[in-house]
Amino acid sequence: MRGPPRTPAGAGVSFRFATPVRFADVDHAGIVYYPRFFHLFHLAFEELWRQRIGPRAYSELIDRDRVGFPAVRAECDFKLPLRFGDTAEIEVSIPRLGAKSITFRYRVHRADPPALCAEGAVVCAVVDLARFVAIAVPERVVAMLDDLVEKSASM
Amino acid sequence: MRGPPRTPAGAGVSFRFATPVRFADVDHAGIVYYPRFFHLFHLAFEELWRQRIGPRAYSELIDRDRVGFPAVRAECDFKLPLRFGDTAEIEVSIPRLGAKSITFRYRVHRADPPALCAEGAVVCAVVDLARFVAIAVPERVVAMLDDLVEKSASM
Amino acid sequence: MRGPPRTPAGAGVSFRFATPVRFADVDHAGIVYYPRFFHLFHLAFEELWRQRIGPRAYSELIDRDRVGFPAVRAECDFKLPLRFGDTAEIEVSIPRLGAKSITFRYRVHRADPPALCAEGAVVCAVVDLARFVAIAVPERVVAMLDDLVEKSASM
Amino acid sequence: MRGPPRTPAGAGVSFRFATPVRFADVDHAGIVYYPRFFHLFHLAFEELWRQRIGPRAYSELIDRDRVGFPAVRAECDFKLPLRFGDTAEIEVSIPRLGAKSITFRYRVHRADPPALCAEGAVVCAVVDLARFVAIAVPERVVAMLDDLVEKSASM
Repeated sequence: MRGPPRTPAGAGVSFRFATPVRFADVDHAGIVYYPRFFHLFHLAFEELWRQRIGPRAYSELIDRDRVGFPAVRAECDFKLPLRFGDTAEIEVSIPRLGAKSITFRYRVHRADPPALCAEGAVVCAVVDLARFVAIAVPERVVAMLDDLVEKSASM
Repeated sequence: MRGPPRTPAGAGVSFRFATPVRFADVDHAGIVYYPRFFHLFHLAFEELWRQRIGPRAYSELIDRDRVGFPAVRAECDFKLPLRFGDTAEIEVSIPRLGAKSITFRYRVHRADPPALCAEGAVVCAVVDLARFVAIAVPERVVAMLDDLVEKSASM
Repeated sequence: MRGPPRTPAGAGVSFRFATPVRFADVDHAGIVYYPRFFHLFHLAFEELWRQRIGPRAYSELIDRDRVGFPAVRAECDFKLPLRFGDTAEIEVSIPRLGAKSITFRYRVHRADPPALCAEGAVVCAVVDLARFVAIAVPERVVAMLDDLVEKSASM
Repeated sequence: MRGPPRTPAGAGVSFRFATPVRFADVDHAGIVYYPRFFHLFHLAFEELWRQRIGPRAYSELIDRDRVGFPAVRAECDFKLPLRFGDTAEIEVSIPRLGAKSITFRYRVHRADPPALCAEGAVVCAVVDLARFVAIAVPERVVAMLDDLVEKSASM
């Protein structure tokens, strides 16, 4: 379900992952429950690891290497509701790949008719899970993410 | 939010836990998504530990004693839908307290107007989480659950 | 992510849908939270509509035709835990396609190494959502599901 | 489970709602999945309506009056992880009660040992759900929220 790399507003490539809105993603108002958008962000983050390295890439990083990426800040602007029946396309790019933290930008598009529904960002620390202290971003993670770094980063 | 012990259909006392149906518990059809009923069952199970022993009782059993209660079978009959605005009252009793497994019966009632919405059962194995093998139900767990055993168990 | 039709234990074809276990599908014991298996069942049910008719097939049935498929009974036997990093393959077949209700059988397999993790069934009523009364299964639904009916149904 | 009104950092009273972290609120890293914090925010929002007006207050606003409060922006800083066994206390105050939108501030505290785990804000539009256009905040909503407005609002 991965679309071709595309050029986001800024520049550089982005990673895209598409998923149908699910029957229970909605709330009593009939639109996708807003905390679910952050879950959509995370699904795209998980797919990034899965598609680029393998199905156990992220679980092994956590279990074997004891490295994790806890969110230290998350934000999202909601522009248009998503509904059951829609397909969500989540686009990921990286406005900032720091020494000990990474900022991911997420845009959630409705596939049909096309529209930008939400745009947000999540700042992740890179931590040693055994001690819960920040560590440098591992080299192979930098290599995996490098092409997603926005050329004119401005988050 | 705990109600007084009550006598269920069979006999003996039951444990009751009430919780509002939440805004996002519903699905696109506007009623509580059926897998959420099993989550309601589990909430009542968690509250049983929390209210009878303490807030960390179940987490310590898992983390320190490495004992867990994985479900080996779950079933539920759905009789009436629950909706946002309703309060769910989950009633717990024990049709069978075996040597290495426990069967919990759950009834989910709508508080107002009163109605039985669902009735189900979950069979839990008692396992050593380090080896994932069945072990005898610990004595203190038997003590905690003893009054909930149905007198004329017939599940 | 749809695999080829395969022959289940009984006979006839089945529908299969694969999805990675997600980062937050697990519970504090580190295995997929058992109510999530029923959610996996429902994902496969949703995909059946989506892949065979279209992305809005099930939402239009509910919104426009006011027909729904509420679960009246659900059951599952859990055989092996699923963990983050695993891929779940959900297999759907139909032991009983009745006049006003349909029984779906679901088997959840771990993809690698291959293993049957859970097997369950969900009985759905077919209801007129405006009046919440049972109605006959619409013809086009019978047509969509026909090949999935088990030859030697025995649920 | 409602605590007494307390004075937040700024001034004025705040509304507090406590809930145990649930068994399945955690992710594979063993801490509360970050999108769940926004769900905790929403639980406190729901409780505000429930405790101050009644169990069906918010559902009737949506169903009968066709007024809703969709989030247009949400943000959160995560300071300390929450784990299963912890009790979360969510504190709500209002930095801005505008003509057609309301900003809610949420602080999530761990009860024991006490610590601030997350602090965020959600801007809600007030909309006519039939037309999905912004409308003025209804008078009775202003009355319900008035005491929660921060004296030295600075969000």
